[in-house]
Amino acid sequence: MTPADRARSEAAQDARVARTRADVSRAALKVLTEEGCEALTHAHLAEIAGYSKTTLYTHWPARLDLIMLALDAIGEMPHQERSGDLRADIIGELKVFRKAVTELRLDHILSVMAQWASVEEMARVRNRINSDGQGPLREMLGEVLDGPRLEAAASMLTGVVACPSLMFGDLPSDAVIEAAVGLVLPADGR
Amino acid sequence: MTPADRARSEAAQDARVARTRADVSRAALKVLTEEGCEALTHAHLAEIAGYSKTTLYTHWPARLDLIMLALDAIGEMPHQERSGDLRADIIGELKVFRKAVTELRLDHILSVMAQWASVEEMARVRNRINSDGQGPLREMLGEVLDGPRLEAAASMLTGVVACPSLMFGDLPSDAVIEAAVGLVLPADGR
Repeated sequence: MTPADRARSEAAQDARVARTRADVSRAALKVLTEEGCEALTHAHLAEIAGYSKTTLYTHWPARLDLIMLALDAIGEMPHQERSGDLRADIIGELKVFRKAVTELRLDHILSVMAQWASVEEMARVRNRINSDGQGPLREMLGEVLDGPRLEAAASMLTGVVACPSLMFGDLPSDAVIEAAVGLVLPADGR
Repeated sequence: MTPADRARSEAAQDARVARTRADVSRAALKVLTEEGCEALTHAHLAEIAGYSKTTLYTHWPARLDLIMLALDAIGEMPHQERSGDLRADIIGELKVFRKAVTELRLDHILSVMAQWASVEEMARVRNRINSDGQGPLREMLGEVLDGPRLEAAASMLTGVVACPSLMFGDLPSDAVIEAAVGLVLPADGR
């Protein structure tokens, strides 16, 4: 092989590895959200992703690797476009979050991450995903609240969607979301 | 055997089964909270509880049975004694909840229950445990709120403790709990 041949061959191999990773990662997220954490085994994932068990064990030997791989595929969380009306924007952001709980099974993802958080690497990934997810809400609340009230409000408005979902498999109605925002925002109508 | 002998022998056997169940149930909860759901296998539980794997498989053949058994051992949730000062009592109830998250690893328990909730039996048990847990808080809030505002406030105050714990492995400070109750309760000082 000439050096140019070798470079081409290495580039082709890199592309293959990246493609495998992307395929398996998407399949892992599908299994995690649709069937739950217990179903995310090497054998089952190999079947769903269409790769051999050996390939999976070579690249991702531990079960935690499979879970991290699934989390890699989550991508950007959907968020509400800002309109400038703070109250309406916060309500909109909570409705987008509510939709994502169902469509992306965020309840499953949140509980898997909590479950494995004693592993430091997972705790780091969880903190990043959750900070990104909660970021826009926290930023909007920060326009009118600060200190412990800002901390409290961010957890409370996350909780108005997350708690019914995690505790009862239920989602809040529009009226409940609006009431929650009404309790948190100062009464001057902003 | 006379009928009286038979009755005595059956009573002794019932007592043995009940004792085994209580022992294994406590051990299962210990594994679930200290080591997480993945560790709760027949082999590991047999070792921890000091019974044979065969005994465990005979009484509780599926992994879900082991998890349900662990949940059986949870018992009554701790709650705040009522003093009559609604604001102080709600703050006290949230601090008791915050303590239970750490001591009883309620974050683990909540996330295991959420994870397995596609199984109807688990969904039922989860709803009962969570309703019992949230009951006193909801009752107190019901003295001053109703309708969507009551719904919202119950999820929000649960969320002020549960969300930091599940999302970031963190607990709210006293100041954050007090700020949360301040946002939810009407301003007339009750």
